[in-house]
Amino acid sequence: MPQFLDTKDPEFDAGFAALLGAKREESADVDAAVAAILADVRARGDAALIELTARFDRLELAPDTLAFSEAEVDALCAQVAEADRDALEQAAERIRAYHTRQMPEDAEWTDPEGATLGWRWRPVSAAGLYVPGGLASYPSSLLMNAIPARVAGVPRLAVAVPTPDGQANPLVMMAARIAGVDEIYRVGGAQAIAAFAYGTATIPAVDKITGPGNAYVAAAKRQVFGRVGIDMIAGPSEILVIADGDNDPDWIALDLLSQAEHDESAQAILITPDAGFARAVSQAVEARLETLERRAIAAASWRDFGAVITVRDLGEAAALADRIAPEHLELCVADPEALADRITHAGAIFLGQWTPEAIGDYVGGPNHVLPTARSARFSSGLSVLDFLKRTTTARMSPQALRAIGPAAERLARAESLEAHGLSVAARLAKLND
Amino acid sequence: MPQFLDTKDPEFDAGFAALLGAKREESADVDAAVAAILADVRARGDAALIELTARFDRLELAPDTLAFSEAEVDALCAQVAEADRDALEQAAERIRAYHTRQMPEDAEWTDPEGATLGWRWRPVSAAGLYVPGGLASYPSSLLMNAIPARVAGVPRLAVAVPTPDGQANPLVMMAARIAGVDEIYRVGGAQAIAAFAYGTATIPAVDKITGPGNAYVAAAKRQVFGRVGIDMIAGPSEILVIADGDNDPDWIALDLLSQAEHDESAQAILITPDAGFARAVSQAVEARLETLERRAIAAASWRDFGAVITVRDLGEAAALADRIAPEHLELCVADPEALADRITHAGAIFLGQWTPEAIGDYVGGPNHVLPTARSARFSSGLSVLDFLKRTTTARMSPQALRAIGPAAERLARAESLEAHGLSVAARLAKLND
Repeated sequence: MPQFLDTKDPEFDAGFAALLGAKREESADVDAAVAAILADVRARGDAALIELTARFDRLELAPDTLAFSEAEVDALCAQVAEADRDALEQAAERIRAYHTRQMPEDAEWTDPEGATLGWRWRPVSAAGLYVPGGLASYPSSLLMNAIPARVAGVPRLAVAVPTPDGQANPLVMMAARIAGVDEIYRVGGAQAIAAFAYGTATIPAVDKITGPGNAYVAAAKRQVFGRVGIDMIAGPSEILVIADGDNDPDWIALDLLSQAEHDESAQAILITPDAGFARAVSQAVEARLETLERRAIAAASWRDFGAVITVRDLGEAAALADRIAPEHLELCVADPEALADRITHAGAIFLGQWTPEAIGDYVGGPNHVLPTARSARFSSGLSVLDFLKRTTTARMSPQALRAIGPAAERLARAESLEAHGLSVAARLAKLND
Repeated sequence: MPQFLDTKDPEFDAGFAALLGAKREESADVDAAVAAILADVRARGDAALIELTARFDRLELAPDTLAFSEAEVDALCAQVAEADRDALEQAAERIRAYHTRQMPEDAEWTDPEGATLGWRWRPVSAAGLYVPGGLASYPSSLLMNAIPARVAGVPRLAVAVPTPDGQANPLVMMAARIAGVDEIYRVGGAQAIAAFAYGTATIPAVDKITGPGNAYVAAAKRQVFGRVGIDMIAGPSEILVIADGDNDPDWIALDLLSQAEHDESAQAILITPDAGFARAVSQAVEARLETLERRAIAAASWRDFGAVITVRDLGEAAALADRIAPEHLELCVADPEALADRITHAGAIFLGQWTPEAIGDYVGGPNHVLPTARSARFSSGLSVLDFLKRTTTARMSPQALRAIGPAAERLARAESLEAHGLSVAARLAKLND
């Protein structure tokens, strides 16, 4: 059974604090093993990649088979059903349209002192996308990572995906082709991250690494951060649904289960002002859990981390939502926009009962890579900005230097940075000649 | 002597690679000590802060003296010379004007399928700015961190600054007042970062921590990252000047020294197509080093990490600049804009001979917190975006769900995520009733 909380209960605060503080993920201590793999790939390049792939994926490769050939990708794509390809293409088109609107603009202006200031955005030169193998090998995640990179204008886009026992996922290949990926390597784990960060003879280094992965991949990304850029380290998925009584309990139950089925550590929470509706959803969840394919996973998540919270009103619901800062927030109420305006912290908001969170996982348009574990308080989902960087620009006219140089000189002296001040003073002296 | 390189030299590639790969900073292994301090402050709050401040800063505090009082700030500000205050105010005004232009816009639109999509930016709820004590206690850094946070609309802005032996820097207090900081605490080191991350009875936790610091502060920021947001971990400062022969060698020498004087690990590089000018600058550096106040530091930086590179033409210079990806890039050439267009990777660009880098440190307007150690390949300087986060929004009309729901259902099934598909299918069934 999930936790049942009620804000009218005097014990509520303690119960809610325990829910917020629950540790859902034990971080496996794999740092030493990962450091060894990184050092090995850095030192021995392709040879290390080939050995590690033989050991972990039971797959014998050579330098010229590390990458999938065009013909291999063709053959795998040919296995994809037409309806699946169409669905991927529709998703890609919508994701592309959404992210194209995110492109920031360059700026330049001259201020009254005569200083011309601005900034310009440029893409990273190369990005490496990690795609997990096995069960969590999701073509949708490939689209969500690759398309923003392509929209940002990244000239070189590489994918690494492990193929245990040589098994490749045709849908992932099709997604890579649709997204316009340039290179696909059959390597995984920390060794793939090492190849992206340090480069090998076959896999040139990239400047930015994104994409989900297991504990080894996450630890490797943390360790190479600084040498290359990385996206966030995502935790288990979460959903908070705020729903009034005017909803179908089964729909809301399915929305909760669509996060719970991801992972035993996932978290699904319902907040409602209607105690009867709370019970109805809870019963609907139990009913669905009897037949759901992934019921073992979903039931464990719902039992260990699920919660149903009854509140006095939607104002209370909004305040709790900000404390939870959920990855996904679904607002199934009469006026979802008004409720959304009262909430500051969420990765993505799904408005109204016709917007199940799963729409956002695939075809809505916004990115499905979102901040977890309350990090929506200070971070954002993946976007084109993750594949761009901003360079600021400044040009002083002699007149501008005369107007603002003396202040710089004064502050440099106050900070005991003499050369800073002299570099301005020498120019001012020339102007005052 | 710095390194002298020439692209016409057959040994150039090896020399340049060595320059790029030079390890300028030994990262002190302080992780265990820092972890103990974080755990202590997390467990014992103010009591731990007070003990650690007594030990490290030789200063006896009580919970009610952890924060500076208004009267104390008043008294310190009264010590600031009027000209210094005016310079800080001019700097603040220019930094504010620049960063105000960075504010991103919210968006919302309805697409042809009937899906209303968009995003909204919101500030973090509270930010904590770290300001080092002692020599590196720079009022300009306070302005560069606090003003973007204020422009972003962060409702609560706290500063932590150590005051060894009770010595506070009046200019830092004045900068905090000008920037509109809400709270100033006299704590430093890893214990200050712990207070910001976990909160104590006196210092409420924040959601984002920014600002420079020593090895302990940097390690503490790394360790609390995830629980709170942090800005980049900055390495030693760097400048690359590309200058043709039509410059005053002394000005360029001072620009190089204005980075070299920061830190023995700082790096200053000149690239020029004019071998005679290269020698003239090098001589000017030596001449300035005879009298510069911080000559011991600047000379060590110039000797160990400085470089003078002679190139065939500015095209070569641009290509090398991209490989260096400098924090600061100064272009003292006839057409600096044209040269800037050929360069992709730099934190900030200073255009033309009237724009010494030091202008950007204080009063130019753009931020002086910039990516170091070649991370300009994938990251940007501090901006209002560091204090904002984006929430994506989506609302499906029944018509939109009918148009795109089937693709989501199809992909959910392909990814073996049944509940995802059912959450869409249940709604589509209702629509098709």
